[in-house]
Amino acid sequence: MEDNKVVLLDWWASAFAMRVKIALAEKGIKYESKEQNLFNKSQELLEANPIHKKIPVLIHDGKSICESLVILQYIDEVWHDKSPLLPSDPYRRSQARFWADYIDKKLYSTGRRVWTGKGEDQEVAKKELIELLKTMEGELGDKHFFGGDTIGFLDVTLVPFTSWFYTYETWGNFSIEAECPKLIEWAKRCLEKESVANSLPHPHKIYEYSFELKKKLGIE
Amino acid sequence: MEDNKVVLLDWWASAFAMRVKIALAEKGIKYESKEQNLFNKSQELLEANPIHKKIPVLIHDGKSICESLVILQYIDEVWHDKSPLLPSDPYRRSQARFWADYIDKKLYSTGRRVWTGKGEDQEVAKKELIELLKTMEGELGDKHFFGGDTIGFLDVTLVPFTSWFYTYETWGNFSIEAECPKLIEWAKRCLEKESVANSLPHPHKIYEYSFELKKKLGIE
Repeated sequence: MEDNKVVLLDWWASAFAMRVKIALAEKGIKYESKEQNLFNKSQELLEANPIHKKIPVLIHDGKSICESLVILQYIDEVWHDKSPLLPSDPYRRSQARFWADYIDKKLYSTGRRVWTGKGEDQEVAKKELIELLKTMEGELGDKHFFGGDTIGFLDVTLVPFTSWFYTYETWGNFSIEAECPKLIEWAKRCLEKESVANSLPHPHKIYEYSFELKKKLGIE
Repeated sequence: MEDNKVVLLDWWASAFAMRVKIALAEKGIKYESKEQNLFNKSQELLEANPIHKKIPVLIHDGKSICESLVILQYIDEVWHDKSPLLPSDPYRRSQARFWADYIDKKLYSTGRRVWTGKGEDQEVAKKELIELLKTMEGELGDKHFFGGDTIGFLDVTLVPFTSWFYTYETWGNFSIEAECPKLIEWAKRCLEKESVANSLPHPHKIYEYSFELKKKLGIE
């Protein structure tokens, strides 16, 4: 089809939007990124995602798909001929989905408590973050990628958060690499791939922006 | 294979476990249900789900699959020849996944605040619950089931919670049927199916148990 246009309602620092950009790049899909102002939401975003009113939203053929893990699976199913993200074996698929869900339930909120928190709550959040990342390091084991020899669903789900690691570390005054060296090696391997490198902003850019974001969120 | 035994680590009043039982019944899969004591967790449960330590867990061929929506998709993929739960069209699959995720993010926690809450918080939770169920009623529209003419992924995801409605209504002193009559009609249609009727306990049994559960949870 000529008219099956792909549009991404996007925000540059969102790890969830980065996932979608990596997946589209892996599949070789051209798309238009529409950067959103999350502090003054556009009519287009409100209409495309009336339930959560959040980015990322993928608009394909005029139809909206919301929630990054739902979008990843949609992309994997529509453009199934190239770079499969989920494995074909049902058990391995279930494990990729399980861990992606685990990341979604824990990582964003724990990371946020690290870079916005103070005192005791920040210390607790740091411990929880390290524990979570060590769990993922254990799941990676000696594999090159979570997906095995090639980047897969779980790699695409997790790697965007590594662009926030410098922000977590600097506000939290700790080193993720010291705690989880193998996970950092994995992140570097992912970044050697163009699809990842072109989708993740420089960690320093996110850190610089975190000052402005704290002000906007009313956090001192 | 002769030895691909199916075991469910189960708990009779869990809406999440009911999902799995409906899906297995739809597929015609025989399994062994192992009822768990959630207040004194078995070694088997802790080993099968070390991350969340929660039921339901499906054990198939000795391998554990956790998290009910992950399990539903696993069941649908392994036993794909009979009663498909997810539609085949990628966009419709994405919508079923989106709404199932929405239910998982909101319904259990909101319902719990209704039957365990008091005063203002309970009133707020009741309003949120009604709003959520009206949203689902809107999504159902004039369809027979969320899946269309036959029961599908989203029906299996949502219908177990209807066995808790009487508990929500009685503790919250309100009527869900008065607010969402079409959703109640849908629930009745689902209950005409053996797979559903045999998987859901009687609502009065859950209500009776809720007194004991409140004590165990330390809620007065």
